[in-house]
Amino acid sequence: MNHPRSPLVQTSAPLPEITPLDRQRLERAWAQLDQKTKPPRSLGRFEALIARYIAVRAEAISATWQPVVVVMAADHGVAAAGVSAYPQAVTVQMLHNFAHGGAAINALCRAANAELMVIDVGTLGPTPAGVRDERVRAGSRNFDVEPALELQEVYKAFDVGLRVASELHARGTTLVALGEMGIGNTTVASALTSVFTGHDPSEVVGRGTGISDASLAQKREVVARALRQHEPDRNKPWEVLAKVGGLEVIALAGVCIGAASLGLPVLLDGFITGSAALAAQALCPNVTDYLFAAHRSSEPGHDFALQQLGLEPLLSWDLRLGEGSGAALCLPMFKAAIHLWHEMATFASAGVSTAS
Amino acid sequence: MNHPRSPLVQTSAPLPEITPLDRQRLERAWAQLDQKTKPPRSLGRFEALIARYIAVRAEAISATWQPVVVVMAADHGVAAAGVSAYPQAVTVQMLHNFAHGGAAINALCRAANAELMVIDVGTLGPTPAGVRDERVRAGSRNFDVEPALELQEVYKAFDVGLRVASELHARGTTLVALGEMGIGNTTVASALTSVFTGHDPSEVVGRGTGISDASLAQKREVVARALRQHEPDRNKPWEVLAKVGGLEVIALAGVCIGAASLGLPVLLDGFITGSAALAAQALCPNVTDYLFAAHRSSEPGHDFALQQLGLEPLLSWDLRLGEGSGAALCLPMFKAAIHLWHEMATFASAGVSTAS
Repeated sequence: MNHPRSPLVQTSAPLPEITPLDRQRLERAWAQLDQKTKPPRSLGRFEALIARYIAVRAEAISATWQPVVVVMAADHGVAAAGVSAYPQAVTVQMLHNFAHGGAAINALCRAANAELMVIDVGTLGPTPAGVRDERVRAGSRNFDVEPALELQEVYKAFDVGLRVASELHARGTTLVALGEMGIGNTTVASALTSVFTGHDPSEVVGRGTGISDASLAQKREVVARALRQHEPDRNKPWEVLAKVGGLEVIALAGVCIGAASLGLPVLLDGFITGSAALAAQALCPNVTDYLFAAHRSSEPGHDFALQQLGLEPLLSWDLRLGEGSGAALCLPMFKAAIHLWHEMATFASAGVSTAS
Repeated sequence: MNHPRSPLVQTSAPLPEITPLDRQRLERAWAQLDQKTKPPRSLGRFEALIARYIAVRAEAISATWQPVVVVMAADHGVAAAGVSAYPQAVTVQMLHNFAHGGAAINALCRAANAELMVIDVGTLGPTPAGVRDERVRAGSRNFDVEPALELQEVYKAFDVGLRVASELHARGTTLVALGEMGIGNTTVASALTSVFTGHDPSEVVGRGTGISDASLAQKREVVARALRQHEPDRNKPWEVLAKVGGLEVIALAGVCIGAASLGLPVLLDGFITGSAALAAQALCPNVTDYLFAAHRSSEPGHDFALQQLGLEPLLSWDLRLGEGSGAALCLPMFKAAIHLWHEMATFASAGVSTAS
């Protein structure tokens, strides 16, 4: 689980191993679902969620329900390029709001009985009390001008994610939901999504938290220029993350890979966590077996990411808040899945006639 | 709230009055949501749910969370026409399963901390212990041969729904979710949906719990024949319900109207509860202000119903189980709505900068 601090020339690092999902276990889960007192497959896409979740959790599956929402936060030098509707100070202001329990994600976690863990991986700071300080540096560099990060910084941020996944697994967490906070991070996610899916920035870039037409044009140009300038190569994912990544996105990729390596399922939120998952997939293709997509966001690039990840989202509500809000909204569905799995009678046990 | 037992010639009855939703209250809810620490409207369709739910609950809105899932059950003479994959005995067998806690709806109610109330409005019986007996008659008549019910039976079943809504309101229920059980009731719902939406049975009828191609053709013909034979007139909804209705569907229409008249929001499940809502709308057009749609089912007729009701469903998961399963899955979203409404800080109170 240790991660080397490598010189700039190194473009790969030892990664935890991820076992592909056992297809037989998945088939067994489907077979058991088909014995339960409901017309076969009548719970539609919900049954696909149940079967895969059960198969991922394997022997660990019990009625225990201990979800944690991990929100990674960072600042982004590219915010200086006028790509956001909000001033950069909002990143840390929102961390204070999280710490005081007044943000959407706080309310949603309370509603779902989920723990909220907020981690500062690199805001401009200072890190508010109540937020875990894992700052790698005070914000990334502006990739409109220079590479966002050095490789050592990428590895450090990734290692934060690995460590968090390991801690959560050790204390019995049953599902990790991902969230993020960072003014400018839809620009980062757009650049990463363009690189990892091969779609042009003109198709990928959207309005984020709600920018004007002029800012949208500027944001598209900033992303396109960064890709021309830095020429990130999708086959060298560490370098991609250094050139146009962001610290919270990299830490989230670390959570994905760390959790998957420990058999812990991960629930993605929207566009930014989706871009982290794309980076994780580029590093460890098997990771997607352990990922679930909460929702399809209103960001145009998110669809490309979901396609590439092979994930079908649970909700299509045009959410674009971030913070893990969509993931938190979907947590109760996993709780429902566990109850269905453990508590439903079979046709035989309940004495109910089957279909003719 | 009393309902006259009317002679067959009467085609309307005094109905509880439903106040249309106060549009100013709705506007105030939106204005308050826009002050909370999130980019305006960034929770997409979830904000529309919150705003309308808050406006419906009005002064009664508090952090209290007491949802009840009401499952109405009945048998249907039309099951004799070979329209279902399951034998008619399954209706009462499933009531036993509900009473023993082994059905999907039991597990989903436990997951959502919701109370489950199962009411037999007219199965072939006998009503199992643990299920409330409000049987109007032992199943409806086969509408492939004769009208399903007499008007007095329609009124009685409707009155069951009104009484249940009144009871739930009196004991502090905050949200009523609807479910149903009744072999053959997608055929009933198809007939009602055809009548109330004006769409041809060939477009409306689907596979229900999963019938073969041959049974599907038979089911379409049965519905089309019933409409030709009985000529139900959508402007005379009581008569429509007598000709091609079903006792649980009528009771559910009663719950919709009773709850709406008391300012209690109603969460619909799928196709069958949707057809009950269409009947309720035909009787009291204002009822739709108080209705929420949980999901878009895989039954083709459900889309027409949702359009006519003006409701946008929360999920599109191809659910086709019934029992209120889709509604129960969506209950936590309303809990989340209440938490967001009561607990989120405003930009001013949290000292967060607004958009430029």
